[in-house]
Amino acid sequence: MSQQVRAIETRAAIIRGAAAAFEQRGYGSTSLAQVSGAAGVTKGALYFHFDSKEALAVAIIAAQHAASAAAGQKLLDDNYPGLHALVSMSYELARQLRDDLVVSAGIRLTIEAVNFSTPVAGPYLDWMVACEEFLRRGIASGDVNPKLDVSAAAHFCTAAFTGVQVVSDVLTKRADIDQRLTEMWAMLLPALVAPGRWEDLKDLPERIRRERAGL
Amino acid sequence: MSQQVRAIETRAAIIRGAAAAFEQRGYGSTSLAQVSGAAGVTKGALYFHFDSKEALAVAIIAAQHAASAAAGQKLLDDNYPGLHALVSMSYELARQLRDDLVVSAGIRLTIEAVNFSTPVAGPYLDWMVACEEFLRRGIASGDVNPKLDVSAAAHFCTAAFTGVQVVSDVLTKRADIDQRLTEMWAMLLPALVAPGRWEDLKDLPERIRRERAGL
Repeated sequence: MSQQVRAIETRAAIIRGAAAAFEQRGYGSTSLAQVSGAAGVTKGALYFHFDSKEALAVAIIAAQHAASAAAGQKLLDDNYPGLHALVSMSYELARQLRDDLVVSAGIRLTIEAVNFSTPVAGPYLDWMVACEEFLRRGIASGDVNPKLDVSAAAHFCTAAFTGVQVVSDVLTKRADIDQRLTEMWAMLLPALVAPGRWEDLKDLPERIRRERAGL
Repeated sequence: MSQQVRAIETRAAIIRGAAAAFEQRGYGSTSLAQVSGAAGVTKGALYFHFDSKEALAVAIIAAQHAASAAAGQKLLDDNYPGLHALVSMSYELARQLRDDLVVSAGIRLTIEAVNFSTPVAGPYLDWMVACEEFLRRGIASGDVNPKLDVSAAAHFCTAAFTGVQVVSDVLTKRADIDQRLTEMWAMLLPALVAPGRWEDLKDLPERIRRERAGL
């Protein structure tokens, strides 16, 4: 195995170990010694790759955001109708939050990052851009109300998802996140759906949720 | 000044000092020495009142929640129409977040508290109960759609506000929170408002926001 490959694998192991340690104890309460323990690497190897705890947090956020953004890009590439893609994206991100420790740690760190020396605004802004694109495609396909303030709606969809997952995490460790997302879409659809498309689309979130669950 | 009064004042000073220190550095990265410095009390006095950093965080959350819940209770006592009270509450909580360091620290700690040994679910549950009461009153006064799933809507209003303030904090240090709340209500009103009341109520959030700003 070449030195470069080993370095890449060590870096990935550190990110996974740090994600596990931060998820267990919280970012602020985790020491770099605990990270090197969880990652199974020496403190020297840790410092070779990351010169501070904040650098490590920023790397976890970047790894999480890359995984989540890839799912969004796939939905864009597959040319699903915009509203269908927007709703699917929310359930896919919920699945990543439940199944992928780097994603759940990254999302939590994004929320705590308001205290970092460099604010981490990128992921929110990227999601707003993706939501805008989904909504514009929804208008083009006739599903979304053409009078919608797309920029404000995209901003709010991003913020609302953030709040739903935070509250679901605190109250149920994310066990109820799919149900809460379905309730979120029930509250948002009347504002989003084009007049005349209501009867066809009012059950869309529930349909997508059942389809994803293989029901 | 009696000893008891002095103890109460010292405790309040510690809570204010800790709120300032946590807001500046984040909960996890703040030491108890930094808290005693910010509060202007000795470490001995600090430990007399709080036996751990987590106990201090829980006390800040309690102080914040008492201040915020009092504003909600006042709106309930004043018998405002339910939808008016619900919308007013969101702007009032936004004002507290901007103007009161104990409130902003308490809200942030509530979000970080998912890592605490005792989960802090109470404030979210209390807000859901308050939102339910506002929505039921809104149904009684004919403003809110009687077919609304009140429990799900109250849950989502609480989560949505949480997300709006988190994102506003990260992107603008809460400078845009009133605008984002107005956009949130524009997205939620079509689901909330009773058929036949739309023309009267569609501008309610903007009216309340302007009224509160003295415009």
